[in-house]
Order: sequence, then C-alpha cells, then structure tokens
Amino acid sequence: MRMRAAVTRTSGIEVTDVAAPEPGSGHVLVRPLATGICGSDLHAAQDLGQFVDLSRRVGSPVGLDPDRGVVFGHEFCAEIVEHGPHTAGTLPVGARVCSVPMLLGATGPAPLGYSSDYPGALGELMVLQEMLLLPVPDGVGTEVAALTEPLAVGEHAVGLARLTGDEVCLVVGCGPVGLAVIAALKARGQGPVIAADFSPRRRRLAELVGADEVVDPAEGSPYGRWTELGVPATTMERAGLEMFGGKFKEAVIFEAVGTPGVIQSIIDGAAPRSRIVVVGVCMETDHIEPFFGITKELELRFAFGYSPAEFAATLDRLGQGMPGADELVTDLVPLDGTPGAFATLAHPGEHGKILVLPNGSIDDTSNAGIGSSTERRSS
Amino acid sequence: MRMRAAVTRTSGIEVTDVAAPEPGSGHVLVRPLATGICGSDLHAAQDLGQFVDLSRRVGSPVGLDPDRGVVFGHEFCAEIVEHGPHTAGTLPVGARVCSVPMLLGATGPAPLGYSSDYPGALGELMVLQEMLLLPVPDGVGTEVAALTEPLAVGEHAVGLARLTGDEVCLVVGCGPVGLAVIAALKARGQGPVIAADFSPRRRRLAELVGADEVVDPAEGSPYGRWTELGVPATTMERAGLEMFGGKFKEAVIFEAVGTPGVIQSIIDGAAPRSRIVVVGVCMETDHIEPFFGITKELELRFAFGYSPAEFAATLDRLGQGMPGADELVTDLVPLDGTPGAFATLAHPGEHGKILVLPNGSIDDTSNAGIGSSTERRSS
Repeated sequence: MRMRAAVTRTSGIEVTDVAAPEPGSGHVLVRPLATGICGSDLHAAQDLGQFVDLSRRVGSPVGLDPDRGVVFGHEFCAEIVEHGPHTAGTLPVGARVCSVPMLLGATGPAPLGYSSDYPGALGELMVLQEMLLLPVPDGVGTEVAALTEPLAVGEHAVGLARLTGDEVCLVVGCGPVGLAVIAALKARGQGPVIAADFSPRRRRLAELVGADEVVDPAEGSPYGRWTELGVPATTMERAGLEMFGGKFKEAVIFEAVGTPGVIQSIIDGAAPRSRIVVVGVCMETDHIEPFFGITKELELRFAFGYSPAEFAATLDRLGQGMPGADELVTDLVPLDGTPGAFATLAHPGEHGKILVLPNGSIDDTSNAGIGSSTERRSS
Repeated sequence: MRMRAAVTRTSGIEVTDVAAPEPGSGHVLVRPLATGICGSDLHAAQDLGQFVDLSRRVGSPVGLDPDRGVVFGHEFCAEIVEHGPHTAGTLPVGARVCSVPMLLGATGPAPLGYSSDYPGALGELMVLQEMLLLPVPDGVGTEVAALTEPLAVGEHAVGLARLTGDEVCLVVGCGPVGLAVIAALKARGQGPVIAADFSPRRRRLAELVGADEVVDPAEGSPYGRWTELGVPATTMERAGLEMFGGKFKEAVIFEAVGTPGVIQSIIDGAAPRSRIVVVGVCMETDHIEPFFGITKELELRFAFGYSPAEFAATLDRLGQGMPGADELVTDLVPLDGTPGAFATLAHPGEHGKILVLPNGSIDDTSNAGIGSSTERRSS
C-alpha cells in the first residue's frame, strides 16, 4: 500500500508517495488526524546530517538515515484504522488516540518521528504500539489532543523544579515549550507566573494559558523586579534575610528559548540561588560565565522529554479543560502545506503551534463545544 | 604602629612595611599564626584589575582598590593580641581563634583578604570581629585550624548535593577544594567516593583524606565505569531500570578544578541525571554544549563559600579528628616567602595547601600529638 507523506531528506522536505507502514506484532495502524511541528523538527530539517551526528553523540536511538529520509511528526492525535497481529483490540477502529512517540519494532525501540524505519505522523498512515495508546477523552478536540506531547514537556520541566507552591516563576520564551510550562505551572496553582517574550502574539497566548503577568523584554528587563516580587535580589540582601529570619521567596526561571546566549542572560539576571530549568533545546555550543553562576549559587537543571505517566497526566488534564488550550493552535494546514509550515516556523514569532492535518479536515462535530478552531482552519 | 605584610597591587606581590590595623568597635586585634593561599588569591594576584571588575559585575562587596593594594589571606588561624572597644573579652589574649573572613567595619561589611581597608592574614597583624570568633579546640594544631575555611567550602558543596547516602560520588580535581569535598563526603560516611587528578601527589592526598578509589585521568577515564558502579550509563538503560523497578544508584560529580572546559568534559562523561556540583571557581568564559546536558537531564549546581554554621561545624569536625588533615599542608613558608609561594602555586600539581606563617614558626607544643608537620617546616 502507498500513502502520501512529508519526507525530509538532506535536500529538504517534500510531500510525496511512499510505502505505507504495516502494523507488526502488537501494533495498530492509525490515521494521523492532527500533527504538530516541533522545534526539534525544525532543527533537524535545517541540517539533517548534523542532527543525526549530534543525536549519535548523545547516545540517542534516533535510527534516522539522512539518505533514506524521515517522516517527522511525534506530536499527534490519530484514529485507529486496523489492529495488527497479537493485539487486544481494547480500543475500537475509529477511536481517537494519543501515544508517546515510541514503537517497539522488529529491531528494537524506534522513536516515532525520528526513525527511517517507521514514519511519524506527517503522513496519511502510521503504526503505533497498542499498549501505549491512550484514548482521547470525550470533549477534548482533536487539535487540542495533538498538543498532549508538547504540553507533557512542560509538565515534566515543572516537575523537575521542586516547587513548593510559594515560588516566583519566570518563563523566558513563550513559544510552544514556554506556553506548556506556563500551563503546567498554572494547573498546579503556582503563582505568580511571569512570562517574557518579544512577540505580542505570544505574550497574548501566555496570558490565555494563565500567565499572571507578561513582560516585553524590549520594554523592560524581566529580571529587574526581584525585590518587588519578594525575592532577594543580591546575595547580601539574601544573607541578611536568612540571618535575621526574614521572609522571602525563591525564584524559579524556565529557559524556553533554546538559542545560544539565553542561558547566560538568565545567569546574569537571576536572583541568588535561583533554580533555572533549561527546557529550551539548544543544539549549538553555548558560552557561559561560570563565575556568575557560582557567586549566586545558581542551579541549572536541564529537562528533556517526559515520562509515560506525565504524558498520560497531561492528557487527563486536557480532559478536565485547560484554559487557552485551543488558542495555542494558531494555524492548520493540509499535508501539502507542510514544507510551507516549516518555512513559516523558521521565524516563529507570530505563532503558537501550527498543526498539519495529514488526512484533510477534522470532523470534530462531537466536540464542537471545545474551542473555536474551525474558524481558524485554513485547510 | 607599623607591620610587615604581603601587599598585592597591580604590579605584583611585595612584602613590605604598612600601617598596622587598629581594632574598632567590637573588633579584636590578632596575630595570624598560619595563613592559607587560596586559588582565588592566585586568580586575583594574576590580574587584580580584572578580578575587581569581575567581582563588581557579580555584585560582590570586594572593597578592593587595585591602586591602594590588598593584603590577601582569608584562610587563617590567629592568636588574640588585644581587645578593642565595646568587646566582651570572652576569649583571652593569647587564645587561638578562627573566624569567617568578614568584618563589620565603619563603612559596612568588609571581606577580609579582599578589602583595601582591612588587611587579611598575610601580615603580622589583623583585626577580626569578636562576635564571629571561634576558639580553636585543644588538640587541633594551628596549621590544621588554618584549613577550616577551605574545608568549610567542601562542607558547603556537599550540603548542596542533596545526598541520601547511597550515591556514587566522583570528585574531579584533588587540589584543596577537591580534597575538602572528599573530606566532607567521608565525614558523612558517604561511599564510594572516587577521586580523579593527574598529579600522583594529589591522588595520594585524596587517599589520605578518605577517597575510596583514585583515578589518573591520563590512564583511564573517570567516567568509564558507571555500569560497574551500579549507575545506569545511558538514558535507555536507566529508563529500562525505572520501568521494571530495577535497583540502581545515582551519580554525583563534584567539579573541583575551575578551568574552562572541565564543566563540558563532565557533561560529556556524566551518567544520565547526574547531579554536578560546580565548586571549582572558573573566572573565565566557558563553553558548554547544552544539548548534552539536556538529553541526559543533568543538574549543574554552582556552589560558593559556606554559611557561618557550616564554618563552625567544620572546625568542630577538626576537633573530633579528621583523617589526613595535617597531611594536607604540604609546605610552610615565612611571610617573606609569600611571593615565592604564589609563584609555586601557579603550577600547583605537587601541592596540597601551602601555609604562610606571618609571625614566624608556630609554637604548637601543646598540640604536638597532632600531625607530624614540624618535620615539613621549611621556615
């Protein structure tokens, strides 16, 4: 069987005809309904060879061969088409599902969306591991369900911050990752959450998902208000408060940009003893000045991915209704629009998440109450 | 009154005649008996202007004027000479004391050893804050007491590592800071503690203070044995153990070198989810590759200094006897030997701690049982 898919090779992205995947033992064949484009996809598409090299160097099981190409797409909501051999069939054909993007293939685990052996969700068909399937709760729109994966990244990053509930949280960068962090913070009732981004659209999205305050770094430093927020701004101030039992708050800063220089700018601006969770994925060499981190005794905690439990908890959270969730999708494009969407996201300032609809428009009549996304559809 | 002191200016270090300090309100005048030279002193002496600039940029209250010069020396054991006005006189003249190197001067807090207003302990006299004085326990030699400050740095760094007792600890660099970390780890009963240094002498010192194993990085990577030590070496291995409830250990790595490139080499070699405590003080710009920290989800915790309580606990620990403590002092020099000692420590591989005896040889007859240091004295 053949299918249409967006295939990325060293030469670029092309929507073309490829062999459809066949479900192996324990697999189900699904039809991707909505697929997000991730910052890592953009990195990888820009220089596939470098991405593969870097992934190999970190020991990641990418299974990606630049010559054979890859069908990206690890953020998705899909619909079951057919059950493969040795499946239980617990969820029926037609059921909407999400899954962590991992498959146990014949030759070991394959990361869906970064494997040349199994296509990701930027094609008309893909196979998923039945035991990893999660049914999409009724009332959660297909587009919103496709956000589970990026939102789980925020859930995970927030989980690493050892929050007690009383911290001042600053989220630097309000792209999909930063927005996911804000959403996870607000789901825990954390506040105040301050969000910084140069883009007015993204600041607006940050407000919609619950940021208590937004800052335009072009107008004022997001790091200038520690004292006002109850966080000691200098080591001397902090030492004094500690010595005399004064009350103060801790600062937790989330780096959600992922470009060189941002970590050091946060080190420069952080309050003493801030915990910095690095959730933006910087794939280039970066410069830091350790002395600044040292004298402030900062903590840099690198965050990556999520656990299956965090993924499931995120989908549950969407089932309970997440403020602003459907606003995060700022554009919908058909499969043929994939190369254009990648080009658009090279300058992503005006976007939240662009979703590709690999099988055409979504029939979400049963979920019409959720979101107003139909109005935004450009497909 | 005049005194001899080692004065550092932009032009270099010179032992010369300067005005002796006078004890102000709440101060005592003391005679430094033994004074350690710290890596920060070496940094500062090398380029005093740059050190001052950097300290100002981090908001440190150095109070150091390169033109007026500075008497270094913030690691010391001293003897009380005279009580200033408004003192309680709890400790008598002649008592041996240690203190955190901080003074409340007329114009605010002054960091002893980095202030142009008050000399540090590389001179015949200095003033200390009476309320910060700690009596040196009987049985603790003067040389060993002078190690309280650097050992407190190790105590503090270990305190930041959130140890449960079951971790595999790796200490990279066995200079005074690394040795202090090893000592603090072993004082808590932590094991195994593995120590790495290129210098045979320093590896021997690491063993003397309790390292369970030493590694010569020229002969084999200190990062090559995670699996053997019970630490999952890859994210896949760790994920598998987590999924099936397998037992494994966490790795904690202490960076105690403080030169560019070491943090990234640790990021490269660390096991997934390692906690890295950066206690070496790198004052230059450094390069890191965030992607490696991200995919392994590392934690970088920068450590600096210690609290007064940690300082006092360290001196207590010395009172209870610390294995190898007196072996850490690898040379003793008179005040006139200070410039030479700084020159020697520019290539410190063969040294633990060099102590300066600003007032000549130590009469430690009452503590003759502690250590065999008299044999090492070169003064």
